[in-house]
Amino acid sequence: MMEKLTLIKVGGKIVEEEDTLQQLLVDFSKIEGTKILVHGGGRLATKIAEQLGIESRIVDGRRITDEATLQVVTMVYAGLVNKKIVAGLQGLGVNAIGLTGADMNVMRSVKRPVKTIDYGFVGDVKEVNTDALVLLLQNGYIPILSPITHNKSGFLLNTNADTIAGETAKALAKIFDVTLVFCFEKSGVLMNEKDDNSVIQHLDRALYESYKDKGAIQGGMLPKLDNAFQALKAGVKQVIITKDSDLIGNNGTHIH
Amino acid sequence: MMEKLTLIKVGGKIVEEEDTLQQLLVDFSKIEGTKILVHGGGRLATKIAEQLGIESRIVDGRRITDEATLQVVTMVYAGLVNKKIVAGLQGLGVNAIGLTGADMNVMRSVKRPVKTIDYGFVGDVKEVNTDALVLLLQNGYIPILSPITHNKSGFLLNTNADTIAGETAKALAKIFDVTLVFCFEKSGVLMNEKDDNSVIQHLDRALYESYKDKGAIQGGMLPKLDNAFQALKAGVKQVIITKDSDLIGNNGTHIH
Repeated sequence: MMEKLTLIKVGGKIVEEEDTLQQLLVDFSKIEGTKILVHGGGRLATKIAEQLGIESRIVDGRRITDEATLQVVTMVYAGLVNKKIVAGLQGLGVNAIGLTGADMNVMRSVKRPVKTIDYGFVGDVKEVNTDALVLLLQNGYIPILSPITHNKSGFLLNTNADTIAGETAKALAKIFDVTLVFCFEKSGVLMNEKDDNSVIQHLDRALYESYKDKGAIQGGMLPKLDNAFQALKAGVKQVIITKDSDLIGNNGTHIH
Repeated sequence: MMEKLTLIKVGGKIVEEEDTLQQLLVDFSKIEGTKILVHGGGRLATKIAEQLGIESRIVDGRRITDEATLQVVTMVYAGLVNKKIVAGLQGLGVNAIGLTGADMNVMRSVKRPVKTIDYGFVGDVKEVNTDALVLLLQNGYIPILSPITHNKSGFLLNTNADTIAGETAKALAKIFDVTLVFCFEKSGVLMNEKDDNSVIQHLDRALYESYKDKGAIQGGMLPKLDNAFQALKAGVKQVIITKDSDLIGNNGTHIH
């Protein structure tokens, strides 16, 4: 039987405020067994870029990453946010280690090819170095992954945190019994987007397709769920979509 | 016989310019055997703090670290500078891993007690976790240490990079045959501060005392050399003080 691994992805918003961050870290510290945290960076990078006089351009929810913006996201995600999480967890007795994809060559990506939009220094994940992660996990170190990868030719690349979580979960599914948890601001996948009490508790592929046909599930939830089903197909045991403040509850949407 | 370890400390200046940084990384990649790089951050933090409207206060060459300044040095040292070095080395085939003292609890410090000056969030190193460093080194990972530590109670602390290099060298001297190299802008310890050709090639304690008495060695070099002799006393095999552009030459001042 494979060892259990819980991989949790939290958004940028929860790390922006001292209170919600502290609660997240306490909740994460209580999760038993082997675990990994993937964090976004979110609006903090926009705020600091603004203060530095760098314009943020977001197209279809994705940040256009020019060289100045890459420097800002590297500072904010890999520096400020990641190290705040690591130090906070160390204070709670979790032996955390913060990583970008460049550290230990944990995650190699390629610069996204230009089609209609030039996203700039944005990376599409190509390879996860499970050896490095397994070495850390087996020695009791808890990886905290920031959404920065590298191309192994000397360049850092800004990378979507959902993708990092999904690709890491898929790669580790060969070694661990992986539960992948996506945390965000809502209580789960909702039947009615305006009603936070309309959480769909269980979802499989057939049910998803039928909800999609009816138009009950739509918008930004579609790529998240496509990711989730891809992860399951690649061997991930379970995907949970839940509220970031409800990490250790057994709520949210369970996807099989 | 113990395995050899080369521990190199470079200043902030060399990492500020693309050309000198690239040369440093190429030189570092050529050093054979087990190695560690410790980097400062230097003026880049001052520049970014300025752009963010945060005033930098330096007293006796030490940065006063208020909360806003701690955020800046965490971003710049642990984020921008550290990850640029790590990605650059990965591009050169060195399997680097960037660390603050918080990561893997590699280095614990305490906030410097207030005597005449309140340095703010500045850490004095108390403990180096050699187990974590040895695990990485023995598996072929090359640690790149940034000058940020933590107190293991949830707080990051700004920490002098010379001290980090010295304390790491001393702790690892129990396990490795350590050579500690301090790189800076001059060619070594000079007999005449104005003449870069007046390098003292070999220095021992007796010679140091006599040069000090004559006033030949003075100023900022004194704490550096006191550190060097402390490291030797604690079991470090050799300390070299040399120019940052002369990392793989056999020049500079060799201290025994």
